[in-house]
This record gives sequence, structure tokens and C-alpha cells, in this order.
Amino acid sequence: MAVQSKRRVGILGATGTVGQRLIHMLRNHPYFEVTALAASDRSEGKRFADVCNWKLPVEMPEAVKGIKVFGCKPPLDCDVVISSLPSDIAAEAEAAFAAAGFPVISNSSSYRMPEDVPLVVPEINPDHLDVIPAQKKNRGYDRGYLVTNPNCTTIGLVMALAPLQQAFGLEAVMMTSMQAISGAGYPGVASMDIVDNVMPFIGGEEEKVEVEPQKILGKLTGSKIVSAPFKVSAQCNRVPVQDGHLESVRVKLSKQATVEQVVEALSNFTGLPQELKLPTAPARPVIVRFEKDRPQPRLDRDAENGMATVVGRISKDTIFDFKFTLISHNTIRGAAGAALLNAELLVAKGLL
Amino acid sequence: MAVQSKRRVGILGATGTVGQRLIHMLRNHPYFEVTALAASDRSEGKRFADVCNWKLPVEMPEAVKGIKVFGCKPPLDCDVVISSLPSDIAAEAEAAFAAAGFPVISNSSSYRMPEDVPLVVPEINPDHLDVIPAQKKNRGYDRGYLVTNPNCTTIGLVMALAPLQQAFGLEAVMMTSMQAISGAGYPGVASMDIVDNVMPFIGGEEEKVEVEPQKILGKLTGSKIVSAPFKVSAQCNRVPVQDGHLESVRVKLSKQATVEQVVEALSNFTGLPQELKLPTAPARPVIVRFEKDRPQPRLDRDAENGMATVVGRISKDTIFDFKFTLISHNTIRGAAGAALLNAELLVAKGLL
Amino acid sequence: MAVQSKRRVGILGATGTVGQRLIHMLRNHPYFEVTALAASDRSEGKRFADVCNWKLPVEMPEAVKGIKVFGCKPPLDCDVVISSLPSDIAAEAEAAFAAAGFPVISNSSSYRMPEDVPLVVPEINPDHLDVIPAQKKNRGYDRGYLVTNPNCTTIGLVMALAPLQQAFGLEAVMMTSMQAISGAGYPGVASMDIVDNVMPFIGGEEEKVEVEPQKILGKLTGSKIVSAPFKVSAQCNRVPVQDGHLESVRVKLSKQATVEQVVEALSNFTGLPQELKLPTAPARPVIVRFEKDRPQPRLDRDAENGMATVVGRISKDTIFDFKFTLISHNTIRGAAGAALLNAELLVAKGLL
Amino acid sequence: MAVQSKRRVGILGATGTVGQRLIHMLRNHPYFEVTALAASDRSEGKRFADVCNWKLPVEMPEAVKGIKVFGCKPPLDCDVVISSLPSDIAAEAEAAFAAAGFPVISNSSSYRMPEDVPLVVPEINPDHLDVIPAQKKNRGYDRGYLVTNPNCTTIGLVMALAPLQQAFGLEAVMMTSMQAISGAGYPGVASMDIVDNVMPFIGGEEEKVEVEPQKILGKLTGSKIVSAPFKVSAQCNRVPVQDGHLESVRVKLSKQATVEQVVEALSNFTGLPQELKLPTAPARPVIVRFEKDRPQPRLDRDAENGMATVVGRISKDTIFDFKFTLISHNTIRGAAGAALLNAELLVAKGLL
Repeated sequence: MAVQSKRRVGILGATGTVGQRLIHMLRNHPYFEVTALAASDRSEGKRFADVCNWKLPVEMPEAVKGIKVFGCKPPLDCDVVISSLPSDIAAEAEAAFAAAGFPVISNSSSYRMPEDVPLVVPEINPDHLDVIPAQKKNRGYDRGYLVTNPNCTTIGLVMALAPLQQAFGLEAVMMTSMQAISGAGYPGVASMDIVDNVMPFIGGEEEKVEVEPQKILGKLTGSKIVSAPFKVSAQCNRVPVQDGHLESVRVKLSKQATVEQVVEALSNFTGLPQELKLPTAPARPVIVRFEKDRPQPRLDRDAENGMATVVGRISKDTIFDFKFTLISHNTIRGAAGAALLNAELLVAKGLL
Repeated sequence: MAVQSKRRVGILGATGTVGQRLIHMLRNHPYFEVTALAASDRSEGKRFADVCNWKLPVEMPEAVKGIKVFGCKPPLDCDVVISSLPSDIAAEAEAAFAAAGFPVISNSSSYRMPEDVPLVVPEINPDHLDVIPAQKKNRGYDRGYLVTNPNCTTIGLVMALAPLQQAFGLEAVMMTSMQAISGAGYPGVASMDIVDNVMPFIGGEEEKVEVEPQKILGKLTGSKIVSAPFKVSAQCNRVPVQDGHLESVRVKLSKQATVEQVVEALSNFTGLPQELKLPTAPARPVIVRFEKDRPQPRLDRDAENGMATVVGRISKDTIFDFKFTLISHNTIRGAAGAALLNAELLVAKGLL
Repeated sequence: MAVQSKRRVGILGATGTVGQRLIHMLRNHPYFEVTALAASDRSEGKRFADVCNWKLPVEMPEAVKGIKVFGCKPPLDCDVVISSLPSDIAAEAEAAFAAAGFPVISNSSSYRMPEDVPLVVPEINPDHLDVIPAQKKNRGYDRGYLVTNPNCTTIGLVMALAPLQQAFGLEAVMMTSMQAISGAGYPGVASMDIVDNVMPFIGGEEEKVEVEPQKILGKLTGSKIVSAPFKVSAQCNRVPVQDGHLESVRVKLSKQATVEQVVEALSNFTGLPQELKLPTAPARPVIVRFEKDRPQPRLDRDAENGMATVVGRISKDTIFDFKFTLISHNTIRGAAGAALLNAELLVAKGLL
Repeated sequence: MAVQSKRRVGILGATGTVGQRLIHMLRNHPYFEVTALAASDRSEGKRFADVCNWKLPVEMPEAVKGIKVFGCKPPLDCDVVISSLPSDIAAEAEAAFAAAGFPVISNSSSYRMPEDVPLVVPEINPDHLDVIPAQKKNRGYDRGYLVTNPNCTTIGLVMALAPLQQAFGLEAVMMTSMQAISGAGYPGVASMDIVDNVMPFIGGEEEKVEVEPQKILGKLTGSKIVSAPFKVSAQCNRVPVQDGHLESVRVKLSKQATVEQVVEALSNFTGLPQELKLPTAPARPVIVRFEKDRPQPRLDRDAENGMATVVGRISKDTIFDFKFTLISHNTIRGAAGAALLNAELLVAKGLL
């Protein structure tokens, strides 16, 4: 793809934790260049470098430092908008951009569940993008549309569930999470709540994880997406870890399987992003480890540049069929990288 | 109980994390006084204060500082032995003491599961002590016998399960733990494994938690204890928390129940230690909290001096019947306090 | 002191971290009872239990739960006001209370440095209270007056400096702190800034620590307090510790001394609160430990109920005369306990 | 440098924390290839992958997995030995290798201080390598010799001191460290000692930091290295941080300087590794930051791939001339990277 054809990206929520990751992942990107940054009103009109409290352990790219920040309303000087806004303002802002003709790739939760909005994980359900024409019709959009990616806790889970569903069918999933603090943004979790402590509550999280996997693993039927019928139970906890959501999972399958078959299904999992060699696609979307004490946040969250889900401790369960532990980097695969991979898929499919 | 009648206690594993808690809890105890301390061979013959790397945030009691440490073999100058030894040496040492005529109250795992050894939580199954005569006969003990308490993760769980079993019957239990580092003793968990990290593996822990609750909630039938038939699935994780095991739990009950009924069953739970007003018994063995973000290790582990189990976030589950979160102090209610409460119960029952 | 004569205390900043500690320390206090609670305007008119995000690992006392919260302006239904307000509002509010006839015992920084306001540590400079008549005259107060206690980092330091100044004279002090997160209140420090991290900056802290010790160790001359002439250099850091400020200190003395003499001066330090047996006074205000790895926050912050300063690692320095490490509980001795001990001293001196 | 001319490296202490870093840094290195790995006797004869508890968040290089581990005694199949052994065994092992004809590049402390062994930081004192002929003569070495790098806490400090010494002269240095747990190796620091805690003691550390900087900044005079005469005082603490030693520093200079001059001296610092473009050399060995809350371990330890020292908070001190804060990655610039940069310098100088 030649330099002149780079798509110009606008980022909604640019100063947030996910916005910062996006900016970092978009530096030197073959398909995209950042041309517009939008954030809350109080940042409007100022240089990005002057309003962003940059919290990544890598330097802010020079190219964005001088960009003038706009408010989160159309128009912006860009071809596509990637959004990571707090849910309370995302609904209105994202609809406004779509209505104004901008493709909106959203990491926010506002439009994940409507049946005419694709909730896409490119390895799993790229075909759900085919709902876009129906969405445009339903919502009266012309060139704009909405594409979403899942919650940061859902995505690691669904990466492990997809190959199991394909191979054995899924009946029920019990997931208990130990989530990183970066998932709450900045300032986010108060340190007094997390040093020498665990917070057994994350607002809205369990509700999201209990419905999103079924939609992602569901089917596009006519002009709407129908969720798969398996059940999910989620208990979500916050632990003193910077990055990486660890999940203890039990699954009940439709067909009998051996541990070896489960390992094989997970290890062999691959999809369209790998086939298309999308720039941000991990070579192996799911990595199985066999050490008794892996995966761990510190050692495994950065596998495949944070885009892989690492699964370990796979064994028979005493109640369901199998239990295992997985890790997924919450701000990379779980947010910025998820949106970016969706954007790359849209380019590859000619939708952008 | 008059001072002259205090039972003389010997502690096996006195220099360990649990041994230190025991020593602290036994200072000024109305029933007991510490007269003998035993530890590994390399400590033998030395003053306790010179060999114990004291790690509690309270001072070592003056009374034990000068006690000469013995090896873990009988005899010791005491009426009863409380043991918290590594499992590899506990089996032989504890049997030797019992055979030598010492009642052995054990926090170790070696004798928890044999059907003639009571695995006792005084609020739940004090009647299991009635297996002692059969045990003496089976094992050829004269005055000695073995009484055990559960694993530190089991005990918090079973405190919440007992009232549910009584009120509604139990079918299945899924438990995912986030356990404190003090549970691994000292030096125990390496700091590189736990700072900014979670360890998804604790050797032998899941296996214990998957069988102990059924025995505790089982029945003494003739001369043996028969485990209850419900199933338990455990996934155990270590988190960067000093004290307090947090557990995410789902339960499937035999009878339908409402959240209010579950709350009521848990809140009203009480037992023999409360009735007998045993010195270490918590006034409320189970405390239900209603804030959306409780229980937390830092705020709730010390409830009732660390002897209560605090339960919160009780709600309907999407797959099983209910889900909730609980915390129990692992070295107090989960170890030293469990053994001590057993000892107090034995005194009250005239067995000591 | 009979129950009927208890002084009625109003707390400004009651919902904050220090306010909560105060409320906890004042439960069952022999001299005082809490009768009024004041906080920010948005809490006004509500029950304390409904507006206070209680963050102590002990329960909120029943007696304060139903108290109606007022704004931070006089009058309040009380005999004395203890204030722990953010500095931006403390100056006006505290002056208003003093002008309205209330003795104000302040933990805030606004009035620590004026020469007619005593900055008191009862063990060190109780005589500085004699400046109060001059203060009243200067400021036109009738029955009201201002008494302050030092910054949480200053107080641990000055407890160790006072005996050294008395015995050997002080020339210069270099202090580097590793401060607990509770010192920043709630929500205070963002968890992303402190998990796996140290923050090398605490706003305004170094400036306070570099001037307060000299005033505390200074002299009341006529109608004003004159700071002692030694110099202090401070570098302040925030570390992932809940409670307890650890300080690495070097001191240059006026007279030569041996390590033994320094240990002796520190160990023997005592003052008026000990003599008067004030309820909150530690039996030993300074405790010297000789283990090579003490003091530590976790093990030593609660010494004497958090009211003692624990000093260790005393040795010759290569540049100054001595170096040592100290710990002081920042929200107890460093804030709530400091104010409370001042209040007790005022009662004992007949000023309250 | 052609592939066929790569120097073959043997690593002593290959399974340790620093050994692992070295192996990682040596993958695909233009000058070196790892051909021999040595560790404690109990690993001897086994495959490296089978004995090494790999703790880096990057994968073990395939090339070393199958290498058979030897004991730490000569000969090894290599041209040069890089050693990071515990000090108790380093002295004998390193001397044995040097005597057997191997150049020994040591990260251990055993030979840092003898006046005929260069203690080298390539940006500062590459000329100290000229003592090697005298060393060979003194010690009867033929082709072998010893070159050392400083302690992990010294190196960050001395990187900031060198430009100040050059520009203004140094009189005295007070340093208080907050050191990462990886500096103690694995298992190293017990988690119970560091979660919610700070350890105010690191065995032998203060003694090293108080003499090494003067040697590095000293002069080669005839056949020995003479330390510079300034004084260093060190207080060393361990904090709950995975990587990166943070240091609070005050300096007393020989000449007056302004903050701007200090900033300029530090920012412009460069040396022979930069001039020679050695593969591991940071482009900027010292980076000055101007934000009020930098440097921080999490955000700054990886600057220039962990090879830069980041300095911030430079300001006038109340007692000495200036105070500032610095961070240096303890296992990269402070250990593995220091040794490797020394090795590269030796190649560039034709000594290897």
C-alpha cells in the first residue's frame, strides 16, 4: 500500500489510556496515519502534548505532539474515526460521526449489542461485517457506519472459546477474572483500593462479559446478528497488576473431548487476519503453554506484541468439562489493538 | 478456668508463619500456656528468639523468647501438641506424637482425609470428634489422638457453604481463589513472582479444596466419616496481598431460594463455639456485607479478629443458582485460629 | 475526668482519611466525644454514614453514623474543632472558627509557620503553647485560637532530631522519604502511578519538611517563636505502601558523639505526654531497633498503636556524622494522633 | 564484522537473573555468539532449557535451549567469559578462568576494587583498560585478564556524576536508593518482605556504592588506578518495583554552577561508546527530563533499551549544591548491559 494512500485516522478519546496505546500502535503504520485527535472539551484547541498526561513507558510520538485537539463532534479532518470514549458520552458522539459520514470503529460499549452493529473479532467473526448495509439502512447512514470490538475481558475469553465452539460446541462458561488496573484508565483505581488488596467489583463488567461472547460467536442471519445460545457467568475482580487480564475459566462442551484435543483445537486456531497477514495480527492468536504456573500477567501479557491470548493449566474439571487459565493484554488486544485490527480488516475488505 | 489448670501446649513448626500466629494468639490465653516449641533440627537447642525470623507486625511475646527449641519428635514437655508442619514431615511426626500419648491438633494436610480422623470446623461439625474412639482403636493409640482443621482456602468456603447446605442443600460449588502470600510461609513466594503479577498455580491447593468441604459437611456414620456428595471445582491463584484469601464462588443448590433467603441463612449462621462462648470464637462466624465492592482483603480480613468469614456480592448466577465473594484470614481463621478453636472445643468437651 | 465533663469535638474534614482516623481514635476517648462533623458542601445535611467512603480496616463507630454533616463554617455544636482540611480551604475556614471563639487544633498546613501560631509536638515543644495569648492579641481572637501539628513527614523526623539536638546540637539534616499512599488521601494517588513504581514527587512536601523541624525545635522568644538555625534538605518519594512513612536520614551534629551515645539519647527520649500519661501518648515515643533490616513499614508502623517513631540502622556516616532510618505512621502519629495528642495536652494544661 | 569472526562467549552464572538478560541481549549480536553456559554444579550436564527458571517477559532464545550446562571452572568452549556469579564463588572461579587464558568480563563484586583491575564504564573511563598489562604481570596471567563493571546502584549514580565532575569538580555525594527486587536475583527477596513494605537494608550494597564511584572517576597513574578523593554516602532501600533503581541524590561541587549549567553538562554527556557506535551503546547515555514527577521506574527504566540513565528534578539543595533524582535499569545498564558494553569496547580496542 503506497504512502499516498494512507487512511487518515481521527481518534476520539485520544488523551485516555486506550487513546495513548492507539497513538503508539499507529506510529509508522502501513495503512494509517493519525491526522485528528479529539478529547473532552477542556482540552479543545490545545496542543496534544500540552493536554495529554502520557502514561506509557515509551515516548509520545513526535508526530502527534503538535496536533491541535478538537472536541468529540464531527467533522474531523480524517477518513475514519477510532473511538474509545467513556460510555456516557460515546453513544451520542459515535452516532453523530456515523451520521456525518464517518466510519466509526469503536472500543466503547454503547453499540456493541444492537443486532445491526457488528461486534467483531477478526479471527472469529469477520463475516459479521456483512450486516453493515442493513445497519446503514436502519439508521439512515450514508457513508458512515459503526463497527465495535468487545470489552477487554471478553476478548481474551472469546479467543479461547471460539476454537472450542468450532470443535466441540459450547454449553456453558464460568469465568472469574483478575483484571489489571490500566483497564480503569487514569486516574482510575485509587491506590488505597489496590495496594495489598483486591477489588471484587468492576462496574458493568460482569454484565458485558455475560452477553458479548454469545454475540461474537453468533450468526449473521438475514439482516441481523443472532447470539449463540450458550450461557456465560462472570465474576470480575481488580488486582494490583499494571497490564493484562488473567481469567480462570471452566467450560462445558457439547461433545466429549480429551485434554489433547482441547490443546490441539486451541493451538491450531487461526483466522482471516493471519491469512491476510494484517499488520497488527498476531502470528498465533492463541498460544498454549504447558508449564504448571503459566500464563502469568508479567511474563505472558506481551506475547505477540500483546495481541495473543495465552492459555495454560488446561485440565479436566470436576463439574464442567475443562478448566484453564488465560491472559490477554487489556489495553492492546483488549482495546487499542482490537480496534486497530478491525480497522485493518476493513481496509483489507475494501470497506475503508 | 483457674490459672493452675491451664493446659500446657507444645507447638510443632513454631518458627513458621502459622506457628508465629499461634504463639501470638496463645499469649494470655485463658485455657492454654505455651511450654514447648519444636522446629527443624537446625534450630534444636537454641533459644526461640535466636532462631525465629519473626514476621508479624506485633512483638514476639516475652514469655516465649527464652524457650529452648526442640526437634519435632516426642516427648515434649506439654499436655497437647498443636502442629503446623510442612506436609512432607507432618505425617511421621504427628503420628509419633499421637502414638506417644499426645493429643495432636493439626493444621497440616497429612491426616485430613482418612475417615477415622475428624476434620473439624467447630461451628459446623463438632460431632465428628466422636470418631476419636474408633480412631484410637484403629491406630492403636492410648491417650493420644489426631484432630485436624482444613486448608486455609477450604475453611472460608465451607463457612459459607454450611448454612446453605443446611437450608437448601448443595449440589455443586465452583470456587476461584485469590490467595494471600502469607499462605505460602516465609520466604515462600518469590517477590519477582508476585509484584505486578498473579501466580495461577498453588501446589496441591486445588486438590485439597475439591475434597475437604465434602468431608466437613459429611456425616459420622458408625465409626467413620462419610463425605457429602456435592461436587467442588477449584481454581487457585496467588495475588500480591499479605493476608486474606478472597474467593469468587458459585453454588448450585438442591432447593430454590431467593437472594434474601440466602442472605438470611448466612447471616444467622451460628454454632457450638458461639454457644459455648469459646475464647477464640467469633461472635458472628459469617458476616454478610451489602456494599457493592465488599468484601476486600484489606478492609475485611480482620473482621472479628480475623475469625469471621465475610461474604458479599450475593446475587443470582446465570448458570448456577447464586454467586458471591468471600474473604477469610488465611493465617488466623485459616490456620492458627482454626487449630486453636479446635483445641478450645476439645477442652470444652472434656477431651483435653 | 468524669463523663459529664467530656469536651465536645467538631471535626473539619470528617470524611477524609485523617478525619476517619480521628473518629476512630476518639471512640471511647476519656476526654472527648465527637458531636459535630463537617465536610465539603456537597455532604451538607446528610448522615455521616451516607456520605463517608470509610476506608479503615475497622468498622465506623456506631455513634457517628447518624450525625448530620455540616459545612466547614462556624458555628458547630462543639467546644473545640479539630481540622484536617485541604490547604486551599483550611486557611479561611480555620481562621473563621478561631474568630468565632473556637479553639482550632489543626493538622492542615495553612497556619504552621506564622510566628504566633504554635506548631506543637507535645514531647518536644509544649512550651510553645505559651504564644497563644500573643496570637489572640495579634489576631483579635477572644476565646478562639490556633494550634497546629506538623506535616506527616516532619513529625517522624523531628521525633528523632529532638533528642539529638538536646544532647549534641544539630547542624544539618538530609532526609529522603519513602512515603505511604494514605498520606495523599482518597482517591489520592492513582494506582497506575504506584503499582510497580515509585513517584519521586509529592507536591509541597519537601518545602514543608525543610522548614517545620526548625520551628518545632526553635524557641519561644517574647511573643514569637524563632526557628532553630540548622538546615534541612528533603527529597520526598511516594512508594507502594499503605501506611507508614520511611525516612533515610543523615545528621551533622554540633558535638562529637558515638553510636552508643546516639542510641542512648534516642532510647531515653521522653516528654510531657509521658509524664502526664496523656491517653494517646506512646509509652516510648522513640523506639530504637538493632536488627540490620528494621524499621520496616509493615512491621513497625503500628508500634505503640502507631504513635511511636521507630529508629534503626544507626551508624556512622561517611560525610555527615550519623545516618539512620526511621518510620512513623503517617495518618496516626503523623496526623490524627498528632492533633489528638495536642488536644489532650491542651486539656491537661487547662487551655481546653 | 563478518559472521565468521564472531567471538564465542561463555557465560558464568547463566541461569541467574543477569545471566538471562545477557543471553537475551546476546541473541543476534553482531560481535558475539553464546557457545558455553556455566552454572552451579547441580545443573551440570543438563540442557539449559531444563535447568533455567526463565523469568524474563520475553522468550528464551531457541539457540541456547539445547546447550549443555557446565560447571563454573575452566576450560569452556569460548573465546571470552562473561561472569555474573554470587560473590562467594566469583573470586575463585574468575581467577581460575583468567589464569587459564580467558579474558573475564565480570559483573561480580570480587575484583572491582583492586588497583590493577579496571572497573570500567565505557562512557567514563575506557582508558582504565590500559592497566591490563600491569594486571597480567602482577597476577601472572598470559592471555587472560579481568575487567569489571560496577554495582547496579553505582552505575546509574556515576553516569550522572561523571559530567558533573568534568564540568565542576565533585566534593561530596549523598545517595539514597529505592532499588528494584530483580537486583536480588531469583528467588531473592521474599514477597512477605516487600508487598506493602520497604526493606531498608541490602547486604553489602552501601559499602560498594561508597567506594566504586571514586575508582571509576579516578585516574590511571602508572600501573595502578587511584580513586578520586570525593566522598560518597549511601543509604540503600528495596522497594516493590520489578526493575529499575531510583536514586535521590545530593551533590556538593567544587565550583559554583547554575541549574542550567548542570542540566547542560548532563544532557551533553557522551563518550567513546557513542563515538564508536558500539551496538549496545545508548544514543544518549544521560537523559534529562523536566516534568516535575519524572523519572519514574515504570516510565523511564527502559529508556534507550534500558541503557540510559534518566535524571530529573534537578534543583538547588538547601545544604549541598544540587539535588536530583535518577533512574537506571538495574539488570540492563546495571549488570548485563554494563558487562556487554565492556565486551564490545574490548573488541573495538582490539583486546578481544
